[in-house]
Amino acid sequence: MSGPQSRLGSVLGHLVGHKNTHPPSLGSNEATNPVYKHVLTPTLFLERAAAIEPEAEAIVHITANGRMLRRTYAEFADRARGLAWFFAKGGFRRVGILAPNTPAFLDTIFAAGASGGVLIPANYRLIAADVAYVFDFADVDIIVADQQFVNLLTEGADCFAASHPTIPILTDLDIDTTEGELRGAFDTAVLEGLKFEAHRPDPADRGWAGLHAYVASLPNHKPLDEDDTVAIPFTSGTTAKPKGVEFSHRGAYLAALANVAESGLNGDDTGEAGKSARCKYLWTLPMFHAVGWTFPWSVCAVRGTHVCLRKIDYGLIWKLLREEGVTHFNAAPTVNTLLCAAPEAARLERPVKVTVAASPPTAHLFEQMTGLNLHPVHVYGMTETYGPITRGYILPEWNKLPGHQKFERMARQGHGFITSLAARVVKTDDDGNAITAKNSKGVVTFVDVPRDARTIGEIVFQGNICAKGYYKDPAATAKLFAGGVLHSGDLAVMHPDGSVQILDRAKDIIISGGENISSVALESILVEHPDVLEAAVVAVPDSHWGERPKAYLTTKTAKGGDGKPVVIGQQAFLDWVKHQSGISRFMVPREMEVVTELPKTSTGKLQKNVLRQWALKGTPDDVKVAP
Amino acid sequence: MSGPQSRLGSVLGHLVGHKNTHPPSLGSNEATNPVYKHVLTPTLFLERAAAIEPEAEAIVHITANGRMLRRTYAEFADRARGLAWFFAKGGFRRVGILAPNTPAFLDTIFAAGASGGVLIPANYRLIAADVAYVFDFADVDIIVADQQFVNLLTEGADCFAASHPTIPILTDLDIDTTEGELRGAFDTAVLEGLKFEAHRPDPADRGWAGLHAYVASLPNHKPLDEDDTVAIPFTSGTTAKPKGVEFSHRGAYLAALANVAESGLNGDDTGEAGKSARCKYLWTLPMFHAVGWTFPWSVCAVRGTHVCLRKIDYGLIWKLLREEGVTHFNAAPTVNTLLCAAPEAARLERPVKVTVAASPPTAHLFEQMTGLNLHPVHVYGMTETYGPITRGYILPEWNKLPGHQKFERMARQGHGFITSLAARVVKTDDDGNAITAKNSKGVVTFVDVPRDARTIGEIVFQGNICAKGYYKDPAATAKLFAGGVLHSGDLAVMHPDGSVQILDRAKDIIISGGENISSVALESILVEHPDVLEAAVVAVPDSHWGERPKAYLTTKTAKGGDGKPVVIGQQAFLDWVKHQSGISRFMVPREMEVVTELPKTSTGKLQKNVLRQWALKGTPDDVKVAP
Repeated sequence: MSGPQSRLGSVLGHLVGHKNTHPPSLGSNEATNPVYKHVLTPTLFLERAAAIEPEAEAIVHITANGRMLRRTYAEFADRARGLAWFFAKGGFRRVGILAPNTPAFLDTIFAAGASGGVLIPANYRLIAADVAYVFDFADVDIIVADQQFVNLLTEGADCFAASHPTIPILTDLDIDTTEGELRGAFDTAVLEGLKFEAHRPDPADRGWAGLHAYVASLPNHKPLDEDDTVAIPFTSGTTAKPKGVEFSHRGAYLAALANVAESGLNGDDTGEAGKSARCKYLWTLPMFHAVGWTFPWSVCAVRGTHVCLRKIDYGLIWKLLREEGVTHFNAAPTVNTLLCAAPEAARLERPVKVTVAASPPTAHLFEQMTGLNLHPVHVYGMTETYGPITRGYILPEWNKLPGHQKFERMARQGHGFITSLAARVVKTDDDGNAITAKNSKGVVTFVDVPRDARTIGEIVFQGNICAKGYYKDPAATAKLFAGGVLHSGDLAVMHPDGSVQILDRAKDIIISGGENISSVALESILVEHPDVLEAAVVAVPDSHWGERPKAYLTTKTAKGGDGKPVVIGQQAFLDWVKHQSGISRFMVPREMEVVTELPKTSTGKLQKNVLRQWALKGTPDDVKVAP
Repeated sequence: MSGPQSRLGSVLGHLVGHKNTHPPSLGSNEATNPVYKHVLTPTLFLERAAAIEPEAEAIVHITANGRMLRRTYAEFADRARGLAWFFAKGGFRRVGILAPNTPAFLDTIFAAGASGGVLIPANYRLIAADVAYVFDFADVDIIVADQQFVNLLTEGADCFAASHPTIPILTDLDIDTTEGELRGAFDTAVLEGLKFEAHRPDPADRGWAGLHAYVASLPNHKPLDEDDTVAIPFTSGTTAKPKGVEFSHRGAYLAALANVAESGLNGDDTGEAGKSARCKYLWTLPMFHAVGWTFPWSVCAVRGTHVCLRKIDYGLIWKLLREEGVTHFNAAPTVNTLLCAAPEAARLERPVKVTVAASPPTAHLFEQMTGLNLHPVHVYGMTETYGPITRGYILPEWNKLPGHQKFERMARQGHGFITSLAARVVKTDDDGNAITAKNSKGVVTFVDVPRDARTIGEIVFQGNICAKGYYKDPAATAKLFAGGVLHSGDLAVMHPDGSVQILDRAKDIIISGGENISSVALESILVEHPDVLEAAVVAVPDSHWGERPKAYLTTKTAKGGDGKPVVIGQQAFLDWVKHQSGISRFMVPREMEVVTELPKTSTGKLQKNVLRQWALKGTPDDVKVAP
């Protein structure tokens, strides 16, 4: 352990001690269960981690005031438990959070769960009215807000506080202070909870066991059922109001366990003396997004270190990869593209596993990453599937394939997760809606597409890694689960080996002269051009063909130059596409435009709806690059 | 793939093809479940493995006729599914198996599960009457028996067949034949099931999906509940009739997933080109013992290779470790002791993980193993907990401890598994029975021992990794779960770090002059003598002290000598114990005897009840070594 201990940390240490001297908690094994069953809930992973290895490094973080904070699992667990006491005694059951990837976010995830509550994370890049919508719709009764974003809750006529003046907001300053007086409402709440615990006369009423017993004694308490809701993350809502996705304790537990196995978070402690194999997980993925794909729970399940990160800063990420011994991170393809293009990019000494999802990656990107010792674990999913639900398993025989065919195969979305049922691709109508037909028994059912790598259908899922549905939206839930499967809305083919590969969201397919053009496939070809950094393709109306593809590009920064992006001429680029990229003639875009930046969601997904607006109304001046 | 393909394999290949061309099965997601839930069952892991990577090597095995057999996951899945069809169409729901660690055993585990049945494995080292007792008690309606052990079922007045002449016995010859005519009843049944499938007119009625639909259509079929019983392995029954332990689908699934994470079976497929990271698991642990601690399911969950083994042969094990690239095996301390002492023992080039359990290992053994590049994963459990339920996690700071303190800590049984609730050690009375007391709230409860590494209590468990109870034995089940916990019957202390360490079975504690002597602790000291191979200590009656310890030893083979064990004189040895081993005076045994072999169960547990007999009635001549 190095780095300054926070003042608060030492106060807490004094109050509760760093050793868990209480008897192990029974967790959620309430009297309603037989001896041989306990409720599946990921909330217990923190309690367990602190019991096994209290001095293990749980959190590394550069605070808002620029200090390096390091916390052990004992400290992390004490803080989360303190906050849970605060929520329990105050009767707060629906906990909103608006924060970047801070230690307070992690504290709040576990505190909400341990006090029997529900976590509602909001995207801090939304406008105030949309943040207010999320928290109002999800019926929060308290909010934890990072100092940097609290104004989104408190300023303006349409902010949340304006319409909900009595809901408490706990501001986290995210500072590591050596002066005790500098303390925000969040730290005060943690301390208040721990003081409440410390002043309970009977030692049996303290600690995790005491907390669980206290929660169970509250009025209207119902014993936890594993199908109860643990969190309601919201969809990004690019085309409609964001929808609240209900995560169950059971689903989150099974998804978190799957992520341990699929991303290989479980280290090997049996190695030679001195070699530490603890997972060090860098928080590049926003925690508000699908509760960080359940990784807050997965990392604690294996007593890994959370390396927090307030914002994406590629220079800082490279520094942390080198200096903190990061072993894993998760990021969308766009983040990885920019990471590989950053001036600090250079091959790492030790391999790092990068779990990649959010939009379809290109083989080109995977090849680049591998060259930097960043090894892709390609997964696919959505908020409605707790984040990842499929993985592109890398088969040993692929290593013998010529050229970059290995990377092309790695770019497939693959097969259902270890704890999931299989992914299916089912036939759709011309609008991309899954269609049913009578099977040979006369039963009306969805029909799987042939495994021909050509027939496009919709990916659908079933089973434990599907969320429970949309909060307070039975119509949308019914649509999501229509016909007894979860509809992803993503179009894909199935390869002969049973792996799925996404082509597009239904609405992103370009239909030109009766031919389907996959914008994803086209983009993966355009980025092969040596000067192109990113490519995005959308349909624009065409009087003759119905639709035609238009490409938006960003370009690489000139090497050794003035740091400005390379200029590409439209005609030269389209000629390259036509003659050298090797694509079918009908797919060749007839227009392209270079921009300084592509529109993206907070999670790094391309906002094609915005691009379609640009195509119709003209590209905004602030991103337009002169041709 | 190398090695000859079996004739049967190619017949099957012709019938069903090696590619799964059927739509992915819905597995057990029957209509009774909502979209977002499916039944937790480990049976689906084989189906999933074959769908993802049909050509992966699933099984490597030296057959009874000495040939090297290699099967892919496609072949393994086809065989298991064929057998499942055979069970389903014949109405066989309770499948007994009497076999060493063969491919047929693996086929039968998955076939019984996939046809909705229950697996009942019996120990082939039992006498015929005891085998008959197990299969009769568990109500089997069919038995799979290896050719080597079928006589246990069919010969003698008290054999199973004598009293159950109509129950079919499928004999597995375990031969890899190039002549089609040599085929036992087991292979014939597999083929019959596959032919039945192949002749179903509608392709939708074939494959896994067809099988699941067929099973669901059977009369009296009930949709699978995850709490239903998947297997009934029996306890070893050293002191009473063996008891049938009911494994549920849910418990087996969660235990199997935990074993993936805890033993690190999930390989890393993201490594550099050409480096295969597939788990190659060597079957040293008997599959009949607690269904191989759930590893048949765990290994399939990660598409690992099962390296089967008909019997423990230390020379062969070393050969397989070297030549087959084995990455993992499981074995009791006694097996590891003899493996380390084998003439073939030499440090391996690549590290192998060895999951060790069944009786408390010594620090000495762990140090020896590590020197050979065999890295212990120390777990603890019993048949009633699906095998392993705790793990001795190795903390990084232990690498800095002087001497062999690291290995002493590794010899502790540790903490509850990733999918378990915490292990507890509760106070006991003088007879070693856990006792309850009123807590500060007036609630009668078990009382945890202090974390002082001294106070002896009983280890108890709760939650998902506890089996459902004993089949048809409510009295024993009530005793097992008395007071709402699972009683292990093992005595242990709790260390200040919350890890548990077993001292003895309650009945193995030696009480001498009012002092408790742990036979396990004493044994771990005696094996430090340079000539001692194994040590076992039991109590013998003593008129003055009540009891006194007596040591039974086996000795090492003289290096470079005639292969005969080293001779140790009683007086010289006891002098060494008294003056050089560093133990407390009251613990020093006053008698020792060298034997050629210690009595052990089939799973490698010392049979202390037999040793107590020897102590009373004299050591049998065939193991006695002249003093």
